[in-house]
Amino acid sequence: MSAQRSTLPYATLGQRQLQAEPVITRLMTAALEHPGILSLAAGFTDNAVLPVDTVAEAARDLAEGGLVESLQYGLNRGRPALRQAVLEMLRAFPGEAGLDVSTSEVLITNGSQQALYLTVQLLCDPGDIVLVQAPSYFVFLELLRGLGVRALSVPTWPDGRIDLGALEGLLQDLRESRELSHVKLLYLMGVFANPSARSIDETDKLGLAELLRGLGQPLPVIEDMAYRELYFGRPYPARSMLSLPEWNDLPLLYSGSFSKSFASGLKTGYVVSRQHEWIEGMARIKGHQDFGTANYAQALLERLWQRGEYQTQLKRVRPHYQHKMQVLQQALIDAGLRELGWHWEAPEGGLLMWLEGPKGFDTRIDSPFYKACLEREVIYVPGDLCFAEGAPHHAVRLSFGTLSEDNLQEAARRFVAAAKAVS
Amino acid sequence: MSAQRSTLPYATLGQRQLQAEPVITRLMTAALEHPGILSLAAGFTDNAVLPVDTVAEAARDLAEGGLVESLQYGLNRGRPALRQAVLEMLRAFPGEAGLDVSTSEVLITNGSQQALYLTVQLLCDPGDIVLVQAPSYFVFLELLRGLGVRALSVPTWPDGRIDLGALEGLLQDLRESRELSHVKLLYLMGVFANPSARSIDETDKLGLAELLRGLGQPLPVIEDMAYRELYFGRPYPARSMLSLPEWNDLPLLYSGSFSKSFASGLKTGYVVSRQHEWIEGMARIKGHQDFGTANYAQALLERLWQRGEYQTQLKRVRPHYQHKMQVLQQALIDAGLRELGWHWEAPEGGLLMWLEGPKGFDTRIDSPFYKACLEREVIYVPGDLCFAEGAPHHAVRLSFGTLSEDNLQEAARRFVAAAKAVS
Repeated sequence: MSAQRSTLPYATLGQRQLQAEPVITRLMTAALEHPGILSLAAGFTDNAVLPVDTVAEAARDLAEGGLVESLQYGLNRGRPALRQAVLEMLRAFPGEAGLDVSTSEVLITNGSQQALYLTVQLLCDPGDIVLVQAPSYFVFLELLRGLGVRALSVPTWPDGRIDLGALEGLLQDLRESRELSHVKLLYLMGVFANPSARSIDETDKLGLAELLRGLGQPLPVIEDMAYRELYFGRPYPARSMLSLPEWNDLPLLYSGSFSKSFASGLKTGYVVSRQHEWIEGMARIKGHQDFGTANYAQALLERLWQRGEYQTQLKRVRPHYQHKMQVLQQALIDAGLRELGWHWEAPEGGLLMWLEGPKGFDTRIDSPFYKACLEREVIYVPGDLCFAEGAPHHAVRLSFGTLSEDNLQEAARRFVAAAKAVS
Repeated sequence: MSAQRSTLPYATLGQRQLQAEPVITRLMTAALEHPGILSLAAGFTDNAVLPVDTVAEAARDLAEGGLVESLQYGLNRGRPALRQAVLEMLRAFPGEAGLDVSTSEVLITNGSQQALYLTVQLLCDPGDIVLVQAPSYFVFLELLRGLGVRALSVPTWPDGRIDLGALEGLLQDLRESRELSHVKLLYLMGVFANPSARSIDETDKLGLAELLRGLGQPLPVIEDMAYRELYFGRPYPARSMLSLPEWNDLPLLYSGSFSKSFASGLKTGYVVSRQHEWIEGMARIKGHQDFGTANYAQALLERLWQRGEYQTQLKRVRPHYQHKMQVLQQALIDAGLRELGWHWEAPEGGLLMWLEGPKGFDTRIDSPFYKACLEREVIYVPGDLCFAEGAPHHAVRLSFGTLSEDNLQEAARRFVAAAKAVS
């Protein structure tokens, strides 16, 4: 491609995009185009439990009334009844029935990915800084690189919790180096995070609010809850920051998605914020990018929510994914991964596991271990891709979403065999 | 909102977005929220001929096989079979059967709006220049303002054709003022343009190719063909630039959409380019914005194309819109608009008419005429919004897409009554 490069006069953004390695596209393409490989990398849901009958029924239902309007353009901000459904969904979580936001504080997006993109466009100039967890969502880190924005890790305790004292020190250092005014956003995954599967408890949410309130300048926060509804057994007990009164006066965006919980093929997500200007600013950019998420997909989701089918689907998939997590974990144990010095915590929700190899182990792309996995036809997400800086080399993200039980077991055996081969 | 403004640290882009007036959102919202108003402004299609049964049938068909996969994530670039359908669609135009592009040169987008956005992001830095027709698509002009890019009008003959000699002079002037290197894109609507309803003939396409080839630097061109399939009677006779051998070595992007021709609620468009890097660059940005247009909507369209239903729908709507155009035109004539000094050409396709009032007439927002229309509950798009600079004040864009025949006649009467009231 470089031979052709001179034929187009790229912008700075275009040049950056063509330099950056699109890991997500590579991983998704590999999984979709080479079905022989067992992918523990792709963060897909399980085809076996996709809501086929449910969507077919909703489509039939829509055909009997409402279809015409859903095939027309809709509002840029999204269907009012779907925005209402989003609020009902949030209010159904324990302790959040009183959530006092309105549909004008909701924006429907093309998956939560678009919400992240719009927010970074709204708030960050090239050279600005976004604080992220360590580890964080690697596609978000790529998105930041594409827009020329610098990611900086929030200090973390060994157990994965945010180290509030060290964060305060970091912010103080940034103030002294005159970089604090360039810190535009703090991006957090509140529950069953990608990739760590960890969650943030209420104590830390309250401590963080206090820290931010003392900062002397507003630092907008995204609480990304893409996996929130995929809990195993019971919802994660912490309320969302949006429902904590201590966060009411801080700039905050709640982000969610129907992709993981229902069907990624409908490519629909949502954000909620009390900062009207945050929603308005995102809506304005969205007005130029597409002026509204596909109305038909929104109408299907709205119908499904109103019929209670969305909730039924969730009740069906939660134990399914819990079971698959257990299958993958047991297969890794049975194949002897712990004896090789690997450790991990069992997730309490989501589709992902985060594993750390022994000290000095190297999981990076093109490492001997990576190649040993490819030879055995199994792939994973190298953990180092999930860090802004100071990335350890010994971690991996495994997804138990896509593969069948048998394939999870086989993939685990291949993964452990590769680990043994290079240990 | 300004009272809240200090709570978020906006980027330059965010500040621009919040300053700019989102005309499209305002017009769409007005039409959707105030059904009492007769809107000749909204570029919607007609609910009366939306493919309700066709989509319902395709959804049923999909439910019998293929639905699972369409509810899952798809490829960032779009479904291969839909990209194939796009190429078959283009090759069905007269003289274009030999179009030699492959599915790897196609990208599926969230309507053609996203294609425009991605291209401007790829090619244009703030301060760069995009050449546009006079008049041009007003949402595109807004998009450019939002991204800090300057629009500059291509010189035009009184009959609306591009004045190639004057364009050469303009480019020469830009070279002399050292601005030519900032000209990054030429945006053209090849057929039934929004808002003028004009088309570009092959002679001008060839002349333009020659001019650009002599420029000494690549100037990428978009040929936006969003309305191409909505022809009245016969396709517009000029081939697309993509099918003209004289354009083969010039950077060119063909852009199209299923929104106008089929259903805007599916929010699906496409681009085709021989410049692999143009497609690749757009795909990379899209990989960060949403990593793929809704797979389910794409699967429906793909199925509809394969069953021949898409083509059937087009055969149904073409005479419908032609008739509606005639109804609107006749009603304007009958109410006496010509006697007031207005003139226009009957469109040969699309959903739009472009009318010019007498010299000195003012159609701008908040002009006496605009207010007289609002009082009578009819709205239009003020023509001055469709110009990069040097906008005349006496033109309007009218859409005959949305309203019923009766309402078109009533809207025309109101429009002419308002014109009489201020003449």
